[in-house]
Amino acid sequence: MSRPSLSKRAERIPASPIRKLVPYALQAKQRGTHVFHLNIGQPDLPTIPSGLEALRDYQPRVIGYGLSQGDQALTAALINYYGRLGHHLEPHHVVTTTGGSEAISFAMMAIGDSDDEFIIPEPFYTNYNGFAITSGVRLVPITTYPEDGYRCPTVEQFEEKITPRTRAIIVNSPGNPTGAVYTREEMERVAGLAQKHNLYVISDEVYREFTFDGLTSIGILEVEGMDERAIVIDSISKRYSACGARIGCVISRNNPLMEAVLRYAQARLCPPALGQVVAAAAYSDETDYIEESRLEYQRRRDVVFTRIQEIEGVVCQKPQGAFYALVKIPVDDVERFAEWMLTDFSVDGYTVMIAPGPGFYATPGLGTQEIRIAYVLNCEELEHAMDALVAGIEAYNLRSTQM
Amino acid sequence: MSRPSLSKRAERIPASPIRKLVPYALQAKQRGTHVFHLNIGQPDLPTIPSGLEALRDYQPRVIGYGLSQGDQALTAALINYYGRLGHHLEPHHVVTTTGGSEAISFAMMAIGDSDDEFIIPEPFYTNYNGFAITSGVRLVPITTYPEDGYRCPTVEQFEEKITPRTRAIIVNSPGNPTGAVYTREEMERVAGLAQKHNLYVISDEVYREFTFDGLTSIGILEVEGMDERAIVIDSISKRYSACGARIGCVISRNNPLMEAVLRYAQARLCPPALGQVVAAAAYSDETDYIEESRLEYQRRRDVVFTRIQEIEGVVCQKPQGAFYALVKIPVDDVERFAEWMLTDFSVDGYTVMIAPGPGFYATPGLGTQEIRIAYVLNCEELEHAMDALVAGIEAYNLRSTQM
Repeated sequence: MSRPSLSKRAERIPASPIRKLVPYALQAKQRGTHVFHLNIGQPDLPTIPSGLEALRDYQPRVIGYGLSQGDQALTAALINYYGRLGHHLEPHHVVTTTGGSEAISFAMMAIGDSDDEFIIPEPFYTNYNGFAITSGVRLVPITTYPEDGYRCPTVEQFEEKITPRTRAIIVNSPGNPTGAVYTREEMERVAGLAQKHNLYVISDEVYREFTFDGLTSIGILEVEGMDERAIVIDSISKRYSACGARIGCVISRNNPLMEAVLRYAQARLCPPALGQVVAAAAYSDETDYIEESRLEYQRRRDVVFTRIQEIEGVVCQKPQGAFYALVKIPVDDVERFAEWMLTDFSVDGYTVMIAPGPGFYATPGLGTQEIRIAYVLNCEELEHAMDALVAGIEAYNLRSTQM
Repeated sequence: MSRPSLSKRAERIPASPIRKLVPYALQAKQRGTHVFHLNIGQPDLPTIPSGLEALRDYQPRVIGYGLSQGDQALTAALINYYGRLGHHLEPHHVVTTTGGSEAISFAMMAIGDSDDEFIIPEPFYTNYNGFAITSGVRLVPITTYPEDGYRCPTVEQFEEKITPRTRAIIVNSPGNPTGAVYTREEMERVAGLAQKHNLYVISDEVYREFTFDGLTSIGILEVEGMDERAIVIDSISKRYSACGARIGCVISRNNPLMEAVLRYAQARLCPPALGQVVAAAAYSDETDYIEESRLEYQRRRDVVFTRIQEIEGVVCQKPQGAFYALVKIPVDDVERFAEWMLTDFSVDGYTVMIAPGPGFYATPGLGTQEIRIAYVLNCEELEHAMDALVAGIEAYNLRSTQM
């Protein structure tokens, strides 16, 4: 009786899958090796200048509570931004959240009770696992594959997973970690399933503008007849390079749903005031900041994808959006490989840290040959990083055969 | 099938109890009546100057993700602040959160599963209800009474409520909404129960320094033998008048517990970067800002308490801390009274908005004669506000008898 126990869910919530690599990265740095971090979705691009300027100009007497649904100036700016995308929203369709993270939690809790099911194509954004455990719901994965660019599952594949407990299908296009951008037909496929089986669609659109080669992403709001079913998750983190501001939102035209989301929002009082100052300015910004970011990510995608193809035995369809490539590489086990790259490898004083694939799958045993590359370094650094990665894979496999 | 249903928990989560009064307050303002807001715990005191200064000096290139457990500078400043209080903490004893709200959620989820029980003296901070529903745990209230100043329940009262599902006792001293400050004996009583019955104590100490008449508050860290059981909830919101910064923390010397809290923290990536800049400066501040705030609240308490005693039939022990008075007033129903004050009453062009008592009780039917007064206006405004309140109670009761 020296120490009371923890909750069962606390035991189940996963530690960050790259966390165990962090000490090895530190050790590499202590040895003088430069570690290129391709492992995190933290953009290196400068935060949108108008946002930083608004923050500099913000001189409050009291940093007080704001509205639980978000400050009116931000809501107005956000509605304006969605208007520029062609979507008319009313203020009550929007609740500002503490990052996209809280938006996902609120959405899950508003529609799901304990053991309710959310169908999600895997691989998917790791942290969905944490949000699901926290809110007690179950993620039901449908596996997609590197060989066909992680395309949207078929109607039959979805219907195999739909049960009376299914509450929603979660989609994320452009996708983290896949880089896939769903076509209009794919988004309509998901919407049609929701209509047929009386489900919600939670559409995580935080990478909306980051699409390449003339593709555009289709948001769930663009699909007809979805007003009562569509829940958009959004965030300023990636779009405006302001991850630390912790500002996101839930958007839906389903009024009872948004009233429920607002009640959750009231329970935590209000979203961060200072981040909202940055966000309101960002959403009002009509410069070509986003387009320049998009072009920069496209250049980086080109560097990364060109170099990936040098790897013998690699499987990777050309990434279409976001700023990730998920790459199947010819190694025995990417978790061992990721660690080895930090503990045993360097070339010209460089190595790379990547995110191992298994963290992006809910199905045990999958992803053991995939790595996620986040291209959040400039093109010159990416060339060096890819040098190290390509050489590292070769050296790792030589080492294996000699053992 | 026009609209899929919400979750059961979404239906259960309470709307903010004062929210229904908001339209009436707006109408009163539209009629030209000045509404004194005694209903919210939003301090009017200026945010600590060193915090605002640090924010002005913060000129990042990228507002990026920080550590999930909070930025190192803030953790160091917080440890330093606790050191000044006489408590030695290690960095892994602290996880920075998005306000005290998230700290409470993390603590509940780290130790409680669905239907686990948390014993809490009522009346208590309204939002605990929302956090409990969100995390699926049950609050088990023990009623305390205005007649004896809402003192801590007895050992027998606690033991009546302890079951195999009990995980923790929640205490909040200085208390919102009660203004009660627990004595050392009372804190030791709670700690002793936790030791005897193998429970945690969650101690919400956000009003720590705001105690009056020479009293000091006893924190749970000051009680012997509680290292594995004590969980402190803290926040900069009230102490430094920075509610909108959304910075709080969970503190415990129970290492597995803090590892679990860290996993929850990783799931939502990081706390707000900009608020942490304010918080790090605030915790490093050794000026007499807090003491001046305390003295100001004490002066206000004196104004409010003096005027309360003018009300015939009132029950209110002198508030000992925080910045609230919970007052039993001689009206039939405080919810009707609160609404009437906004819709039908003004004196010299003034009226007041107060928080009705029932929102602070978990037991249905209680609190119908209590109102919470937050003294977050200066003494001159408080005099006017109390004029209106005293006159309002009298006028309301005359009205009743004439109906």
